[in-house]
Amino acid sequence: MSAIPKSLSRLIESLARLPGVGSKTAERLAFYILRSPKEYADSLIRAIMDVKKTITFCKSCNSLSEGDLCDICSDPKREKSLICIVENPNDIIAIEKTGQYNGRYFCLMGALSPLDSIGPEDLKIDSLSDLLKREKIKEAIIATDSDQEGDMTALYLSRVLGPLGVKLTRIAFGIPVGSNIEYADRATLTKAFEGRRQF
Amino acid sequence: MSAIPKSLSRLIESLARLPGVGSKTAERLAFYILRSPKEYADSLIRAIMDVKKTITFCKSCNSLSEGDLCDICSDPKREKSLICIVENPNDIIAIEKTGQYNGRYFCLMGALSPLDSIGPEDLKIDSLSDLLKREKIKEAIIATDSDQEGDMTALYLSRVLGPLGVKLTRIAFGIPVGSNIEYADRATLTKAFEGRRQF
Repeated sequence: MSAIPKSLSRLIESLARLPGVGSKTAERLAFYILRSPKEYADSLIRAIMDVKKTITFCKSCNSLSEGDLCDICSDPKREKSLICIVENPNDIIAIEKTGQYNGRYFCLMGALSPLDSIGPEDLKIDSLSDLLKREKIKEAIIATDSDQEGDMTALYLSRVLGPLGVKLTRIAFGIPVGSNIEYADRATLTKAFEGRRQF
Repeated sequence: MSAIPKSLSRLIESLARLPGVGSKTAERLAFYILRSPKEYADSLIRAIMDVKKTITFCKSCNSLSEGDLCDICSDPKREKSLICIVENPNDIIAIEKTGQYNGRYFCLMGALSPLDSIGPEDLKIDSLSDLLKREKIKEAIIATDSDQEGDMTALYLSRVLGPLGVKLTRIAFGIPVGSNIEYADRATLTKAFEGRRQF
């Protein structure tokens, strides 16, 4: 299309590769960048460069970090004997937003998925097992997703880590806060009944 | 939040300023950029730089261009005596996609909007008027939006350009192709009846 200058269509193509961004949205974003003050484009470029340059993975928990250890692992106020096992760094961000958890984390970097050929050797299960053997951990909370892969991973972890003598728990499944029981799906409602607690 | 490294939160903030991108989406986009191969980040950065550096506005029609004249204005195969008046460069892209129009364009760079204090002096109406006086134009097609601002702008143009003796037309409003009459709104249906044509 001759109406779009080449450099603009290259930007549209690049933006359309982002997840959830179709060609129409990419067009709108590209036009916004084109019209925005130069300072905005500069700050966006700098932010992308910084992220690619400075972010690595924490040597202790595999989470995102700007140094050898992430902010959480190097925080002396965190409870070292409590560890929460998650699939991905994004999960840590979600849990941190609650402000209720004060332990440390361990990121598996994925979940078991036979369909995608992801087996135990592709996850950081060995180094998790080493960590539980090496350090004094009172409780390991499994917080994998509640989908098939997450369930399978949790089950596998319980078998592998169980013999180590560490208390293993999994976060609760049930009706989300603020929702109607009427609209809850059967599986969630079943889990909610199974997990009922005394007042 | 200590779980997100500083450089990543700066990228999330930058991305959240894009139109239609909320903080959740910005987070997802930032994670994608973080995990994508370095080549992708590099190509995105280069595309943003190129767009900001090379794209200017065409001296003849105000559309986007990489030189003094845009590809359409400098195309000798285009019908010079036919001009289509649009609000923004994006409109040209939409019209070009039809592949049906072979004339040139003129971009007003906005529409009249008293609420946003955009008056005739903020649009390129003077240079449009000069162009119509200076060059031989057989027909000027007004293709402003069918909203209040677009209607107002079309009416204003018809008053200002009418005395110049150029044939002025406005694109048709009616039922969009592929839609049900049952679901058409009242205003569209009224316009569709007003604009009915003999077989």
